[in-house]
Amino acid sequence: MEKEINFRIATEQDLDKIVEMLADDVLGRKRERYEQPLPDSYIEAFRAISSDPNNELVVACHGDEIIGVQQITFTPYITYQGGWRATIEGVRTSSASRGKGIGTELINWGINRAKERGCHLVQLTTDKERPDALRFYEKLGFKATHEGLKLKLK
Amino acid sequence: MEKEINFRIATEQDLDKIVEMLADDVLGRKRERYEQPLPDSYIEAFRAISSDPNNELVVACHGDEIIGVQQITFTPYITYQGGWRATIEGVRTSSASRGKGIGTELINWGINRAKERGCHLVQLTTDKERPDALRFYEKLGFKATHEGLKLKLK
Repeated sequence: MEKEINFRIATEQDLDKIVEMLADDVLGRKRERYEQPLPDSYIEAFRAISSDPNNELVVACHGDEIIGVQQITFTPYITYQGGWRATIEGVRTSSASRGKGIGTELINWGINRAKERGCHLVQLTTDKERPDALRFYEKLGFKATHEGLKLKLK
Repeated sequence: MEKEINFRIATEQDLDKIVEMLADDVLGRKRERYEQPLPDSYIEAFRAISSDPNNELVVACHGDEIIGVQQITFTPYITYQGGWRATIEGVRTSSASRGKGIGTELINWGINRAKERGCHLVQLTTDKERPDALRFYEKLGFKATHEGLKLKLK
């Protein structure tokens, strides 16, 4: 790619493209609703994230085009002597941009942001149905030391 | 036990006992510092949690005695059509109270709190070195669908 990849906090104008990327995925298409107009629930969540100093929705841009997204949550915990952690979630790159190292740049950006925020740990969970994602994160230095458990509520 | 178990948001006066419980554990003793006075980092983390409407540090009490703790973080995400999740972390019961179902009551309290807050999912990770904890959460209905990855920062 000729143009540099830039990272910035998402604006509400980016939300359409973000939802499109999240829906364009083998697991995402089962659970997202990418429609026009965008369902209100996405807009409400966007505003809740944007107004929370401990949540950052980050987009990767190639020129004006949004090609990746991730959400980083910064959380203070009592454990580890009162240490802060960064949790990364909702990572996606646009299908046209896959295999070009954008995901690696995106996560490395998140790791640096976690350091800036004074976190001692970056954590995330990855669906066991995505073995490629597990290898991707392990290559970046993450260790799969934990089981990730989910309980769906009615 | 004769007295009922009550659950409430922790106060700063509870912090000493909370750190004592976290340190009194095979993994916790390697990473906590239960000393008098309590290291400032614990107090700073407690205040960051208490002042954040999306974080709740919850204690289980038997009369005046604190016998359990958990932290619940409520997070808005774009994924799942803008759904909120509850993340449970730092779960511990006092060594004298183990095997009495306190942990089950504590997590069920957290699940109900997540419902009250409109979450569609409760999530947590458990160290693969704690096979008993995995069975405990599975009995409560959690599914180990994900790998839990951690990256320690310098």
